[in-house]
Amino acid sequence: MDEVRIIEIQRSVFSNNEKQANKVRDQLKQQKTFLLNLMSSPGSGKTSLILQTIKSLRDDFKIGVMEADIDSAVDAERIAAVGIPAIQLHTGGMCHLDAGMTMQGLKEMNLTELDMVIIENVGNLVCPAEFDTGAVMNIMILSVPEGDDKPLKYPLMFSTCDVLLVNKIDYLEFSDFDMTAVKERALKINPSITIFEISAKTGEGIDMWAEWLRKAICNWIAA
Amino acid sequence: MDEVRIIEIQRSVFSNNEKQANKVRDQLKQQKTFLLNLMSSPGSGKTSLILQTIKSLRDDFKIGVMEADIDSAVDAERIAAVGIPAIQLHTGGMCHLDAGMTMQGLKEMNLTELDMVIIENVGNLVCPAEFDTGAVMNIMILSVPEGDDKPLKYPLMFSTCDVLLVNKIDYLEFSDFDMTAVKERALKINPSITIFEISAKTGEGIDMWAEWLRKAICNWIAA
Repeated sequence: MDEVRIIEIQRSVFSNNEKQANKVRDQLKQQKTFLLNLMSSPGSGKTSLILQTIKSLRDDFKIGVMEADIDSAVDAERIAAVGIPAIQLHTGGMCHLDAGMTMQGLKEMNLTELDMVIIENVGNLVCPAEFDTGAVMNIMILSVPEGDDKPLKYPLMFSTCDVLLVNKIDYLEFSDFDMTAVKERALKINPSITIFEISAKTGEGIDMWAEWLRKAICNWIAA
Repeated sequence: MDEVRIIEIQRSVFSNNEKQANKVRDQLKQQKTFLLNLMSSPGSGKTSLILQTIKSLRDDFKIGVMEADIDSAVDAERIAAVGIPAIQLHTGGMCHLDAGMTMQGLKEMNLTELDMVIIENVGNLVCPAEFDTGAVMNIMILSVPEGDDKPLKYPLMFSTCDVLLVNKIDYLEFSDFDMTAVKERALKINPSITIFEISAKTGEGIDMWAEWLRKAICNWIAA
């Protein structure tokens, strides 16, 4: 395995993040590359979900991954170990990615050869929701051990995302997590959010999520 | 149960947070009130840990709690339900508390009647570590389902805290969490951090933590 490249990204110089985000999306559209922005708390299973998604979709699409963290390259190394192009972005202490920072990362990827790039945003249920990265789709994970009250406390994240993946359902039997309540709470904030129940560890529910994502990517490329 | 008061706190107007934090500590010292700042990811068990700590120490100290969240009052309601004075701070979307925001909260508590105030900071492993709240002691929770790689990714939080509580050890048997590795990683970043293994759910390990905290409070009040 080649060593993973670590890119030290800089604070964005752009005052209008929305404008930059639209620029990113225009460029992606031209290159027919789907950009997926994955957000969650630390430790909810983002990297494991990416690995499962790669496993399901790698025969259909050429996939690349940008891992964002304040420090370490452990996540990008896990992705690179399965033969997928991955870079590690270090955010210089920043708690989120914005469009300018995403652009800096995308410049290091060979976009003309990729159908999809997955961003693993910094593990944080607050700040990443405030900044449009330029992604085509925003998705989030809530893991069962985090508890079913999270939509009440972090409503912006739930309102920003197109998809909620409820992960670690293999923990359900040891937990008092109320799946019905969490769905009701998420849908109250965001009636158009699509919800999947998964275990990135056991693979349960991954097929349905991957099939749904496959269609979304095809629709976007065809549009 | 009285209804929990929700305080909408404002962005701080102070440019020098460190100076404000020292002011908070001076005031606490005069009033002999110990301020404990609890930080962690969302859903790692902060409120449950506070409830267990209250149970162990309420006969010895008069305790109050300030819950910080972007939205909802569910945490403060859980604390108030056991008869402990609790207020809910709403941060107006802010991802952390600083000293000025902590001051706004403390003004709403009857400090002369309290030996200890516990702050439950916003669930976030990044931003709260950057802002001194004026607390006498900073502590953090890492819960087993979050994984043992967190010190590598969020080093500032581990370096800022006096205590690491590894929570949800009742999940250890279903997990590949490496306790030895997490301790080594945390101690490498912060050699003086004190580590306890606990389950806020089952109560395991709480006695040792509470006894340690009791001594720390007594030492601080006596000093």
